[in-house]
Amino acid sequence: MKLAALLTSAGINFGLCVLFISLYSVLRKQPSILHVYFGKKLIQDGRKGNDCFNVDRILPTPSWIVKAWRPTENEILVSSGLDAVVFLRTLVFSIRIFSIAFLICIFGVLPLNYYGQEMTHDQIPHESIDVFTIANVKEGSQWFWVHCLALHIISFSACILLYFEYQSISKLRLEHISACPPNPSHFTILVRSIPRLRDMPLDDVIKFFFMTYHGVSYLSHQRIYRSGTFYKIMTNAEKVCRKFVSLRATSFDLKRRPAIYRCSLCGGTSRSFDLYDNVFDVEGRNTPLNLSDPREKEEDCTAALVFFKTRYAAVVASRVLQSSNPMLWVTDLAPGPDDLYWPNLSIPYRQLWIRRISIVAATILFLFLFLIPVTFVQGLIQLETLQQRLPFLRGILTKKFMIQLVTGYLPSLILLLFFYIVPPTMMLFSTVEGAISRSDRKKSACCKVLYFTIWNIFFVNVLSASIIHQLMFISQPKDIPFALARTLPGQATFFITYVLTSGWTSLCAELVQFFPLTYNLVQKCLFRKKVDDPNMVPTFPYHTEVPRVLLFGLLGFTCSILAPLILPFLIVYFLLGYLVYRNQLLNVYRTKYESGGQLWPIVHNTIIFSLVLAQIIALGIFGLKKSTVASGFTIPLVICTLLFHEYCRKRFLPIFKNFSAQALVEMDREDEISGRMEEIHRMLQSAYRQPTAMDDDEGEVAEGVKVENSDPLA
Amino acid sequence: MKLAALLTSAGINFGLCVLFISLYSVLRKQPSILHVYFGKKLIQDGRKGNDCFNVDRILPTPSWIVKAWRPTENEILVSSGLDAVVFLRTLVFSIRIFSIAFLICIFGVLPLNYYGQEMTHDQIPHESIDVFTIANVKEGSQWFWVHCLALHIISFSACILLYFEYQSISKLRLEHISACPPNPSHFTILVRSIPRLRDMPLDDVIKFFFMTYHGVSYLSHQRIYRSGTFYKIMTNAEKVCRKFVSLRATSFDLKRRPAIYRCSLCGGTSRSFDLYDNVFDVEGRNTPLNLSDPREKEEDCTAALVFFKTRYAAVVASRVLQSSNPMLWVTDLAPGPDDLYWPNLSIPYRQLWIRRISIVAATILFLFLFLIPVTFVQGLIQLETLQQRLPFLRGILTKKFMIQLVTGYLPSLILLLFFYIVPPTMMLFSTVEGAISRSDRKKSACCKVLYFTIWNIFFVNVLSASIIHQLMFISQPKDIPFALARTLPGQATFFITYVLTSGWTSLCAELVQFFPLTYNLVQKCLFRKKVDDPNMVPTFPYHTEVPRVLLFGLLGFTCSILAPLILPFLIVYFLLGYLVYRNQLLNVYRTKYESGGQLWPIVHNTIIFSLVLAQIIALGIFGLKKSTVASGFTIPLVICTLLFHEYCRKRFLPIFKNFSAQALVEMDREDEISGRMEEIHRMLQSAYRQPTAMDDDEGEVAEGVKVENSDPLA
Repeated sequence: MKLAALLTSAGINFGLCVLFISLYSVLRKQPSILHVYFGKKLIQDGRKGNDCFNVDRILPTPSWIVKAWRPTENEILVSSGLDAVVFLRTLVFSIRIFSIAFLICIFGVLPLNYYGQEMTHDQIPHESIDVFTIANVKEGSQWFWVHCLALHIISFSACILLYFEYQSISKLRLEHISACPPNPSHFTILVRSIPRLRDMPLDDVIKFFFMTYHGVSYLSHQRIYRSGTFYKIMTNAEKVCRKFVSLRATSFDLKRRPAIYRCSLCGGTSRSFDLYDNVFDVEGRNTPLNLSDPREKEEDCTAALVFFKTRYAAVVASRVLQSSNPMLWVTDLAPGPDDLYWPNLSIPYRQLWIRRISIVAATILFLFLFLIPVTFVQGLIQLETLQQRLPFLRGILTKKFMIQLVTGYLPSLILLLFFYIVPPTMMLFSTVEGAISRSDRKKSACCKVLYFTIWNIFFVNVLSASIIHQLMFISQPKDIPFALARTLPGQATFFITYVLTSGWTSLCAELVQFFPLTYNLVQKCLFRKKVDDPNMVPTFPYHTEVPRVLLFGLLGFTCSILAPLILPFLIVYFLLGYLVYRNQLLNVYRTKYESGGQLWPIVHNTIIFSLVLAQIIALGIFGLKKSTVASGFTIPLVICTLLFHEYCRKRFLPIFKNFSAQALVEMDREDEISGRMEEIHRMLQSAYRQPTAMDDDEGEVAEGVKVENSDPLA
Repeated sequence: MKLAALLTSAGINFGLCVLFISLYSVLRKQPSILHVYFGKKLIQDGRKGNDCFNVDRILPTPSWIVKAWRPTENEILVSSGLDAVVFLRTLVFSIRIFSIAFLICIFGVLPLNYYGQEMTHDQIPHESIDVFTIANVKEGSQWFWVHCLALHIISFSACILLYFEYQSISKLRLEHISACPPNPSHFTILVRSIPRLRDMPLDDVIKFFFMTYHGVSYLSHQRIYRSGTFYKIMTNAEKVCRKFVSLRATSFDLKRRPAIYRCSLCGGTSRSFDLYDNVFDVEGRNTPLNLSDPREKEEDCTAALVFFKTRYAAVVASRVLQSSNPMLWVTDLAPGPDDLYWPNLSIPYRQLWIRRISIVAATILFLFLFLIPVTFVQGLIQLETLQQRLPFLRGILTKKFMIQLVTGYLPSLILLLFFYIVPPTMMLFSTVEGAISRSDRKKSACCKVLYFTIWNIFFVNVLSASIIHQLMFISQPKDIPFALARTLPGQATFFITYVLTSGWTSLCAELVQFFPLTYNLVQKCLFRKKVDDPNMVPTFPYHTEVPRVLLFGLLGFTCSILAPLILPFLIVYFLLGYLVYRNQLLNVYRTKYESGGQLWPIVHNTIIFSLVLAQIIALGIFGLKKSTVASGFTIPLVICTLLFHEYCRKRFLPIFKNFSAQALVEMDREDEISGRMEEIHRMLQSAYRQPTAMDDDEGEVAEGVKVENSDPLA
């Protein structure tokens, strides 16, 4: 691919971006679809748009940029929560580090790459992009120390920036925990796998256990009943079955002779039908279908929420091994009332480990099955393969411009479309895995999507077009750096166009909110439904956006010294992303639950992984290009980066895993002194309300729509 | 190697064993060396041997076998602790599982291997051992289902036995915790990384912190001062240096003019010598060299033991994150007073992570450096190489008997001698790593020796003689099963002789206690020293014996269906081992500290690893021999074994990591009701006594001798 083709692609994408942004600035002013673009604002303020028409409504204006830019971090923290701030800080970090990388690589590394071989240069626009990559530097060149130095500067800057980010986010998290209003989840633990005693009701068992072993601080508890669609169907079927059996018994009891012809469906006698009416009636009056039988309720209880008098006591109870049998009385800190994912609480604790293992296996299988479409797309980059596979393109592909467009644009567009099924699948996996909170589920899906993205976009694309080659790569870990080093510079073109298409365009799509908009229009125009229900406002899809941003970070780190041309496009992506996401967080997505900044460790780990990968690839390249000095200096860099990571893990990670006794005791004491404790205890009793069957169904539907709303666009 | 040669080797080793056992049964009756063979008994009973001579004293008798056999498990638990029981149960498990394997493989698999190919058989004694291995079964044979079935039976029996062992050992551990007399370690936590406040003495800081955040249950605390040889040398040097500096200041203060000629060593004036006498005198009287300056003491305090009123409170304090900075106020449950390894408590907490990483790196390096001697030994098995390397053997190696002896015996003897340096090295590594208790140190050394043994004896020997080949093996994990499957049957000879030499002989050596005996005789006869100091009685070297037993288990599992001839020799080893170790645990080694059965998870994991490895090797062999049915049935077996392991990890492992609240609260309550609590609190104040400089030096020496005593034999 020539530089001109790349610039064409960039131009097209830039044009598209401007178009979409203008479209957005017009659409956001239309009162009839206000809830698509201001879902969160509408919940907060309850304002309605005025329907009167003026010219300003159909003119694109950049005022939203100013509005998105203005709020301080503190305001975003208050309105969108810590997770939003963490996400925006990831973007800020990326902008900072890639600005440094840009300065170093464009002025230091790029000229070196360009003049790396003695050759006659074309005019710059007609140069192949490969000329700008490290592949162009001749073997054994004495100038590799510049690349090595650039790598060192980027790595050290990244580590320093990461350290300060981790520090400030830890501080934010600590402040967030202590500053937030009394949170019922701080006082509550979730107990699972409660043993059943034959001669004692479950309530008494729970009470007895916690009174005995946490007597001073136990307040009360609340049982959790089984729910979930599958369970409900099963229970109802079982009940109906039981009823039929009892009916048969009744029919014998009443000394009616069993008739010879039996109903072939239920095995009841042909004359028992005349009984049914009565019996149903009687039964119906005694026990309606809502599980009022205490024995049945007992059996349906799978877990309990236990409330404590102080936060400290709750944390202690959640951290300590309760029983001598570790499979009984399993305790965890409870998630917040809105965060709790009720259907998963009914999963027996004994199933969890096997579910987790199955999901790991399923995820790995999914990762590898996805190789098929990716390999297909990879083949499209070669013009001949493209013409062979899609023969109808042969006519179009005679014009030069079209060739540039198709090779530069089509493959990553197809890839993009394929990738839309990934986040919902991973979300499903995380649900089946048994996450007890919505934020946990999202976090877990985020990790899965992340692994998926890095594997399927980065590794598979870099490593080759044929599956056999990839399997060979898995079986020879020693050759990974060289394999990556050999192919990555050649793949730079693909990654640059990927930034342009997937990156830039997806930001615009996020801004315009195509799917919710379409859904909204269809609902409104075709079905004449009102769709501005506040429950339909989606939460921010961290599980799709975080992996995306991190993938671009990975591309940036690995390509920066190899193919510095990617950097300007990346910086534009991050800058635009910062604006767009700020805007969306402020206006579109509501914050119903949050993990309290627990995304940051994932971000941190991924950035460290990207750095180390970049260093290892550089090592491979220096090895291939026979620059022993540069290789020699890169090895300590890898070790230092890993040590830095280990230090951060020791220094900051526990803050994100546990609450500290110091903070909790101080909060407890403050509440006691101010006399709020009584009120908090009263509030606890009604904080957690398990949705009934009806609620649950509604919740499921709402959730489904939410996923539909947020995922495809995300 | 022919079967006859193997039997010769077995005969020699059997003869040696009988000889050693007879020697032992005589030596143990000699009163002058009684403390070598009855070190523990002597401490317990304080009995002395009677010196009067009778004929019985020089006649070998088998009475010790009866005495070692008689005590019940409970008696061993009482006298030698839970670790000893766990170790013996490992042997019992091995005897059981290999008896099952013996029955199946000798009667099912061995005939199949022998008649696996259509060939004319020699007389059985002249057959090569390879004829008895799976290598002799022809490709594509229909009889591989027998091997597969044998593998299934062995695997399932092993899992069932393991499950019941884990269950009973967990029960023992729980009983052990609750039944033992009030243990100060249950009430105590170790606090490290205590922050210093400028205007508050350290004692007050600690008291304030724990009174504030664990107010109800805090009892008292005890500071720990820096110790360790290196630190002492540094401190003394510093002090002397400071003294000189202050002296120079004094010399100026006294308005004596500095002379022109300065002492070239300390920079003092040539006339300052006449001052020294006085000043030393004055200083000496004011501040003797024992750190009585409170500021200095403050600085020297690195950690503290904090005592709590109840066990539950101590566990809670050890489990909860104390401060918002995870690097401050780091808490751990304290080891028992005898178990605590004082010198390591002075390591700053911030150093620990880097120490751990360094030690991991050092261990891996050591593992690979050791390839050099192992490769050398491996070469010796080939007769030609042997003659080439050690030309003086050429004359001896003409006789057939000598060839059999040398090829069968010499290599593993050399290997054995090389391996004597491993346990002390690993112990040193574990000390540097910063283990806070002696039992932890031993456990950690045990793991390291285990990795080392499995890698260097099993993998390296199986995989080949050349280092380059091994590195290739590391870089191609996919081929591991095939590489192992291809070479393991051929290496069976080596492993069988290894069981004979290293296994049988080492048990005899353990029984006779060569090194302590020699040390004792040298001390007594040459230096005329008394050596029956009770402090010199060693503790049981679990870090050398557990890996050894587990290695033989690994050999048994991996070879059982491949080369069943190893099984009878292994069973003899385990039976003899059971007797010998019982005897040694009862008579020789004292139990000063113990880990409370924490060895079992290591044993369990290793056995599962051995099983899975055996299954994977079998998979490789079935693959090589083109038996798809057998391969097909082996894959689910591997998965089932791994799932079983995961289940055990969930079900039992937490019991070995934490104390349960239930057990602790009940123990606390019992003590409170019986009124023993006051007494326990008093006892706590004096339970931990940090050794002073003098004690410490003695302790180090004693420890050194102990290592010397126990390791080489171990």
